[in-house]
Amino acid sequence: MNGLELRAIVLGSGAGGGVPQWNCRCRVCRLAWSGDLRVRHRTQSSLAVSVDGDRWLLLNASPDLRRQITDTPALHPRGEDRQSPIVAVLPTNADVDHVAGLLTLRERQPLVLHATRSTLDTLAANRIFDVLAADVVERRAVGLGEVFEPLPGLSIELFAVPGKVPLWLEEGDVVTDLVGEGTVGVAVEGGGRRLLYVPGCARMTPSLEARIAAAHVVLFDGTLFDDEEMIREGLGTKTGRRMGHMPMTGPGSSTEAFAAFAGVRKIFVHINNSNPALIEGSPEADRIDAAGWDVAFDGMEIVA
Amino acid sequence: MNGLELRAIVLGSGAGGGVPQWNCRCRVCRLAWSGDLRVRHRTQSSLAVSVDGDRWLLLNASPDLRRQITDTPALHPRGEDRQSPIVAVLPTNADVDHVAGLLTLRERQPLVLHATRSTLDTLAANRIFDVLAADVVERRAVGLGEVFEPLPGLSIELFAVPGKVPLWLEEGDVVTDLVGEGTVGVAVEGGGRRLLYVPGCARMTPSLEARIAAAHVVLFDGTLFDDEEMIREGLGTKTGRRMGHMPMTGPGSSTEAFAAFAGVRKIFVHINNSNPALIEGSPEADRIDAAGWDVAFDGMEIVA
Repeated sequence: MNGLELRAIVLGSGAGGGVPQWNCRCRVCRLAWSGDLRVRHRTQSSLAVSVDGDRWLLLNASPDLRRQITDTPALHPRGEDRQSPIVAVLPTNADVDHVAGLLTLRERQPLVLHATRSTLDTLAANRIFDVLAADVVERRAVGLGEVFEPLPGLSIELFAVPGKVPLWLEEGDVVTDLVGEGTVGVAVEGGGRRLLYVPGCARMTPSLEARIAAAHVVLFDGTLFDDEEMIREGLGTKTGRRMGHMPMTGPGSSTEAFAAFAGVRKIFVHINNSNPALIEGSPEADRIDAAGWDVAFDGMEIVA
Repeated sequence: MNGLELRAIVLGSGAGGGVPQWNCRCRVCRLAWSGDLRVRHRTQSSLAVSVDGDRWLLLNASPDLRRQITDTPALHPRGEDRQSPIVAVLPTNADVDHVAGLLTLRERQPLVLHATRSTLDTLAANRIFDVLAADVVERRAVGLGEVFEPLPGLSIELFAVPGKVPLWLEEGDVVTDLVGEGTVGVAVEGGGRRLLYVPGCARMTPSLEARIAAAHVVLFDGTLFDDEEMIREGLGTKTGRRMGHMPMTGPGSSTEAFAAFAGVRKIFVHINNSNPALIEGSPEADRIDAAGWDVAFDGMEIVA
């Protein structure tokens, strides 16, 4: 041990749109708009990780990033003039909820942007991201399975999980069981501890099971409570699987797939506003709790 | 009179970066980070206007839009399922602070996006904005000088003011005295009242003076207190004019240029975090007050 401690802060625990979503009056959003204390407001999906508490890596940069920084003292600038404890950012794919916050990280702050080649290509094709000026923000392509250290003592490996291309890049028939750079998980290791961050995943695989078995903490796709949720609530026409997300419950769900991993701390992140587990004290929230899972909230601090 | 009343809500009163800015420890930001009550937190530049209080037009969509909607009851969805009082959006140019919030307006909500041809071209060239799906979000090109009604009883006219291209589109020598679609003001009329919204302007012109004389309320570029501010504070190498902004004070300033318009209500918007007028009770704030100007704050409601 070298005094390093692997820590994570959940900056945003919601899925795309957050809770409440700007145009939504679903059951959960109605409670949130009305100020009902059973539903916490949640910003969009992002995690900060560190091993020294001084320098932080962002996993995903959500559209809510400016507010998330303001709400998180560990990420406030320190010292004189311009500075930030955020020294590196890693979007797990090119979803709007995962890259729009890069636009907040402008103002000529030195930074390293790590991403897969396909994510970097998408960013390069959208010139608005040039606000991250090339002379101060270095863009580094990261291959799947390549271990690198974005911060001293913190190692990162990206790995593919089943998923689909971002919604705004969908064309023609959509394959939701792609395994490639489109949907990745992040293996984080530091201070002798291992954390997995998998905000989107369409189904369990043997290689993912092996990674979970070796981890101390897993933050996992909690988008939907069950596969038919969006259709039943009148919010959409797609099943969870068509959206590229394993549901929390039911056949092929995450609670089922993770039942074997009793020794791993399990936390749901990327939780959609339609998900009734967001209502504290609801039968659905109780069921998730009984299955041994936590439901993340904004500002949640995790010591791995 | 037909019962319509021209109203505006300042959703965001800050310039790009807001107050505090994520990586800034300037005098104003230091006070904001420390929680000093003399400096209000401010989100990035955006205004909502309405004549019936039910349907709203957004002038600019800032990166902070999701939070701005949550903080503004008039913009919360009502009724069942998915809905929004926001029925139209008009970005005044393609600055990140003015268009990034469009990414928040996804989730298949019908909407009309009005903008100049050059702004629409820039958005089209950045495919990430395709999250505003073409089958629900109509994009309408608006010419300078063309009067149109984005909401019943609310008429809008865009007009050119001196300025420059957005920072992220700058190439080679930068002209800061361009008059074209790059920097526009908005003339808003409804219920017999007239409001001007000019969040960026490099210098006064005779045609702008004529518009001001005919208006009841003017919301004007309050980016900088004086022309040398960014250089003196060690925050940049550019004068206000090089940034395309008239300073509040000094030669060629807005307070000087507006001195003749005693009968018009004058409000500064788009205020940069470097601007000492943001410190309540400061000599600079007192000077702006004495000149007959208000400094906008988030949530400010204006009845024109």
